[in-house]
This record gives sequence, C-alpha cells and structure tokens, in this order.
Amino acid sequence: MTNKLFFDVKPELSAYEATCKEKSSVGYYDLPEQDLDYLEEYKKDFNLKNTNIEHLVIIGIGGSSLGLKAIYRTLKNTKDFSKKIHFLESTDPIAIKAELEKVELNKAHFFVISKSGTTIETTAIYKYILGLLSDEKISEEYRFTYVTDKGSLLEAHSKSKKSFCLFIPTNVGGRFSVLSAVGLAPLALIEVDIKALLSGAKQIKNSFFESGYIKDILLKKATYYAKNSMKYNINTLFVYSESFKYFTEWYVQLWGESLGKKQLNSSFNVGLTPVGIIGPKDQHSFLQLIVDGLRDKTVTVLKIRNFNYDIRIPEINLKELESLDSINKLSFNSLINLQADSIIEALVDKGDIPVDTIELECINEENLGKFIFYYELLTSLVAHMMGVDAYGQPGVEQSKVILKKKLQNRGLL
Amino acid sequence: MTNKLFFDVKPELSAYEATCKEKSSVGYYDLPEQDLDYLEEYKKDFNLKNTNIEHLVIIGIGGSSLGLKAIYRTLKNTKDFSKKIHFLESTDPIAIKAELEKVELNKAHFFVISKSGTTIETTAIYKYILGLLSDEKISEEYRFTYVTDKGSLLEAHSKSKKSFCLFIPTNVGGRFSVLSAVGLAPLALIEVDIKALLSGAKQIKNSFFESGYIKDILLKKATYYAKNSMKYNINTLFVYSESFKYFTEWYVQLWGESLGKKQLNSSFNVGLTPVGIIGPKDQHSFLQLIVDGLRDKTVTVLKIRNFNYDIRIPEINLKELESLDSINKLSFNSLINLQADSIIEALVDKGDIPVDTIELECINEENLGKFIFYYELLTSLVAHMMGVDAYGQPGVEQSKVILKKKLQNRGLL
Repeated sequence: MTNKLFFDVKPELSAYEATCKEKSSVGYYDLPEQDLDYLEEYKKDFNLKNTNIEHLVIIGIGGSSLGLKAIYRTLKNTKDFSKKIHFLESTDPIAIKAELEKVELNKAHFFVISKSGTTIETTAIYKYILGLLSDEKISEEYRFTYVTDKGSLLEAHSKSKKSFCLFIPTNVGGRFSVLSAVGLAPLALIEVDIKALLSGAKQIKNSFFESGYIKDILLKKATYYAKNSMKYNINTLFVYSESFKYFTEWYVQLWGESLGKKQLNSSFNVGLTPVGIIGPKDQHSFLQLIVDGLRDKTVTVLKIRNFNYDIRIPEINLKELESLDSINKLSFNSLINLQADSIIEALVDKGDIPVDTIELECINEENLGKFIFYYELLTSLVAHMMGVDAYGQPGVEQSKVILKKKLQNRGLL
Repeated sequence: MTNKLFFDVKPELSAYEATCKEKSSVGYYDLPEQDLDYLEEYKKDFNLKNTNIEHLVIIGIGGSSLGLKAIYRTLKNTKDFSKKIHFLESTDPIAIKAELEKVELNKAHFFVISKSGTTIETTAIYKYILGLLSDEKISEEYRFTYVTDKGSLLEAHSKSKKSFCLFIPTNVGGRFSVLSAVGLAPLALIEVDIKALLSGAKQIKNSFFESGYIKDILLKKATYYAKNSMKYNINTLFVYSESFKYFTEWYVQLWGESLGKKQLNSSFNVGLTPVGIIGPKDQHSFLQLIVDGLRDKTVTVLKIRNFNYDIRIPEINLKELESLDSINKLSFNSLINLQADSIIEALVDKGDIPVDTIELECINEENLGKFIFYYELLTSLVAHMMGVDAYGQPGVEQSKVILKKKLQNRGLL
C-alpha cells in the first residue's frame, strides 16, 4: 500500500502523542495482535455441530455488519467461498423478503450481532427468524451464534439456548470492531485468511507507532483535514474498483460517526462529512461537482494495481466509431487505471482541490487489513485534532427514546 | 405524494419565471406529454424479431443507466417481470465478469445507450460484448438497441447493423433523460406501466406550472437551499426504504452534476453536495453526524406509507430480553415508519437542522414519476437561484482529454 499526498502541511504532533496515550485504554489498537485460539476452538465446535451449513446469515446493523460486509463483498468476486454470507440489516419488509429468498433455512446458520445486546432492528429480525424456523419445524439447536459484549442481556439470553456466544472486547466500539469476532468469526468459517488480514493491520500499526512511513503520512493528512475542517468539510473517497463499494460504506460510518460530535471542551457542533464514490461510474455523476463546484471537498483516489482478474477489449473496429479504435486490445485492468490516473491529473491540476492517492498492489486479505487500520488510525488522529471523542455516539440516543415511547403507546398499530 | 417543510422562507419568484421561460427550450419539461407511439412500434417490432429474450443488458453509464436502474430496482421486489435487466456500467473487469455471470448470452438483448454516442466506457464494453457473441457464434442480428442523439456517430454506426435505434431528444440532458427512450424503452419491454410513470410526472408538472401546491412548496424549498448554500452545503436525502437506494444514486447525479458549476456571471465555484442515506440502516452510521456534527446539512426524509408487502414480528418473548417485548406483533411496515417518525421528531427538535419530509402512499409507477419530476423541477429552480446552468457538465472534459492522450501514447500497455 502506498499513499501519496498532493498537499503539504506541518504535522500536529500532539495528536500523535494522544493516540499513543489512549492505546492502552482504547481496544481496537490491540486487535491486530489478538490471540486467535478462541476462533480456532469456535470453528472446530461449529463444524462438529453443524454439518450442512451453506449460508451464514448476519443479523446486525451498522458496526455489526458494515466491516464484515466490506471484506466479504470485496473478496467475493475473486475467491470461491464454501458458504455464502447474507445480511439482514433493515426493517424494510421488502428487503428482508428479498434477502431471505436467497437463503435455504435448513442449511443456514444465523449470527445475531449486537454490541449492546438490545438493538431494536436486530431483535425484531431475530424474532422473525425464530418464528420462521418454528413454522418450518427446523431445530434451533446450535443454529445461532451470538456476538455481543460480555455481560450484555444478549449474552444472558444466549445462555438459555444451545448456541455459540462470542464477545466483542468492551473497549472496542462497534465501528472499530471489524477485526474482532464481529468480522472474524463469520470470515473464519468461510476460510478467509484472517491471519493475513490481521498481519496487514499490524504492519500499518507498527509503521505508525514505530515512527515509520505511515506515521508521517497519516499525521500530515490528519492535520490537513482537521485544520481545514471548516473549509473542506467533505472528504470524498473515490475508489476505482466496484468491489470496494462496501468499503466506502464502512468508511462513511467510521468517519461520520466518529467525527460528527459536540466538541469536548465546548458545545460546538463539529464534524467532517464522508462521501464514497466509485470510479469510473461516478465520473459521470459526481465528478462535475468536484471539478467545478464549491471548494469544500478533499479527494482520496484509491487504485488497485492488479485486479487478479482481467479481460481485454477485442480488436474490433466499429464503423463510424473508428475514433475509438485506440482502446482496442487494451485490458480493462489497464483502462480503469488509466481513467483513475487521468482524474488524478485533472484534479491535481486545479491547484485548489486537496488530493491524495492510495494504491493497493492487489485485492487480498493483507491489503484489506492495511486499508482498514490506515483509516482507523486516521480517524483517531483527526478526532484528537478536532477535540472530539471518536468513540461514542451520544447523538443517536434521543431518537431511540422517542421510538421507545411510540412503541409503548402504540395501541392500534 | 405529500411534502412537508419544517422551515420557512420567502420564495424567490424570479426563478419560477426563469423555469417558465426555459420550458420551451429545455427538453425534459415536455417528456410527460410525449407521444408514445414510437415505443409501441418499437415493442411490436422487437417482439417480432426477438422471441426468446429473458435478459436485457444495459451498456450505459451515468445518465444512461442511473434513472432506469432506480425505477427497475425499486419496482423489482414487488413485481414479477418477464425479463431481468442487468447493468454494465463499469470498466472494472471483476464487475463486468460478475454481472455477465448472471446473463445467458443467447437469451440476451443489449442496449447501447450513449447520448454523445462516443462514451468510452460504453464503447469498450460494447466491443467486449461483440467479441463474446462472436466467440459463442451467437448472431448479432437484432440483438442490439442503440439509444442516442439523432445525428450521433452511434446512430450512424447503428445503420451498418440490423438493429434497433431510438433517440434521446437533443435538448434533454443525460441526467434528465430517464423519462425518454433511455428509461422507457427497456421498461416498456418488461411491462412496467410507463403511462402511469408519465402521468405521475405530469401531475407534478401541472401542479407546478399551474400554480398549485407543488409550486409553493418547491419554490420555498429551492429558495431555502439556494439562499443558505454556503452554510448548508450538503443536502441529505434519507430514504426509509431499501428499494429506494438506487433513487438516491440517481438523485446524487441529478443534483451534484447540475448544481456543481462555475457561476454564469463569474468564475466562482458554487455547488450543493447531495448525499443519499437509507433508513433505518444509516441511523447506525450517518445519523450521529447529522445530529451532533457541524450544521452543514439539510435533511429530507422519504417515507413510504404502504410497502405493498408486509411481515409481522411474532409474539415471541425472549428470555432476558423481555424489555423488547413491546415490538411483538408489530408489522415491519409499521416499525420502519415509526423509526422514520422518531428520527423526524428528533431532528426537528434540534431547531437548527432544516428538515422536510416526503411521503409516498406506496411504491408504484405513478408515485415514482411524481418523485422524479419533483426532483427535476427542484434542481432547475435551485440552479436558477444559484446562477448556474443546470444542463451542461463542462468540468468533466479535461480528464477526458488527458485520457485520450494517454490512450494515444500507450505503447506498452
């Protein structure tokens, strides 16, 4: 992974010190070095008790699904997995129906993932699935894996069932939890190389905390973003790979929910807005706004050097369209990267759009681990510089209270 | 469709006059009243020459796919269509492979959609498909429908083939073209009720130009957005329906590409940034940023009163999770709307977040037509108030020129 910045700034070192200090209390920093024995044991036990599972169904929302989905969907089209992973993450009845149509219930294992243990969407869907299993007379035994905080009501609930229960370390926030059991348990079951995933994360972590290349670049980038947060209040991640679409969704949660806060030492509302776009598709949608619109955006372009799979434009000359013969015999892998390079050149040329580029050698577990940890560290750094607590989400409480009241008062629904 | 604004402003009438004036030269305003005979003929001819088509494959990008995809994907889970529609809209080789795996080539008909006729992505994929057909010895005859501007090189090319060719009115821009042949031709072939779609659009149009309810509300909303464009530079569309996900992508292009411009009377860069999010999923991702973050966002919440399909949470009491028994027997249709209502209440309660709500009675063609035209009119109004030309996209040219040079210079790719 390489990262090149087309802007410069004097790095704010105090934020680096703050991350070094919080390393002992904020749990996600430790995930790359976690002991994986518990997962080995879980997997062995799982395979003993479940012989015919072809579908893993994730009942989880936000931090309980976005990271896992990003890794799975990014790898899915280049690897053959023995099981399919499905996501139930909405209360939209049509979406639930559409997703369940792809699942054979008697060959499915369900993950109920909720850090707090009492997420309303997750509980609603869990109950619905229990109802379906009962209707179909499918045994519940060992059909569920619960992933939650130790001591949560969901853990207590799991004890009343013959099931599996795994834990999220309590000091690991939902949106920073992809490298905990939340992401790793389902990925381990489908034979994703989770060691390589953690190894990638560890390389970035070490380079950062041992004052390597990543420290310099992350500090500069974070400083630039935080310092200019009122001018460039939108941070665009422009990925030249359709497979990375779900990583942009993961990034949106990580960035938006961590940085959109009241400042710790005031009641000021601050924040940076993440936007994920996909190349070249969004050249025909969002690019015009970046190029000619208000100068309120930074742009990070992600390129994949080698897609692991390629096809070629044949040498076909089209009558009347001979002007486009220059693409003949070009591989699509080359074309998409030429497109990315052209955009980078055009954006840098503007002079007043802060651009940086991230390049991954290929799509594999190690590189995904790097990408994940890179963004987590960047988020922590920017949070310190903006004076906000990256790890809570107090703003979403009020609507939960309102919903609870509405639910209690529903007489005639 | 109802639209309720939780903010107030004195409407800027000159923009209304400007839209009335440009009505005769900007083509999209006429689409609701278009004569559909050409489509009837096309469909008849198509069915005569193609008897076994089960897949329609759209080769198009940006305005040549987003609107059609939005309508198709929104209706898909509630209707049974005789043919499937697939979209090839990226040069990512993995994405092309993944999409084509779902297509039986000998039962497929291909749409090559390009307003200019020389879109590079579209041409590359078109050549690739021609190569595949030739490899598989599948006849090309009548296997393609070209949709393009009259007089384009693609039209000229189509004449060298036994094929179908349909036109986009030249004064209809790509992102405003969903109600032209671009969207209507494939939709007509799968028996979507395109008359109802146009009728919905027409109702909104009439209410606007005949000084009805829609005129007042759109003028107020547009005025508020334009007037506060430096403060609230981000316009969030928060849809409580997974099916509407692709409409948020359509909205992103329409809004971003139309409003992100150099001002007509200056070289100032202005623009409004569209963000599409989906409820309740993004309550667990983006909501925190809206509630506690910088006050730089307006929020439009879209609700569907009746999902046309529903399932119910069974009466299952979960040990240790009894606190959540209040959702028992609730339908998911009710739950998702209660969630939307709670968010609306919480956001309005903040007092400094501009909120409005759009409610559709159900998901059908007529309501989608209304939604489309509502956003097109809003875009035109805001463009006038911001002093930009809504209908071009000059900013994307430079990167095209750079790419062209790179393609000409590629010696060793």
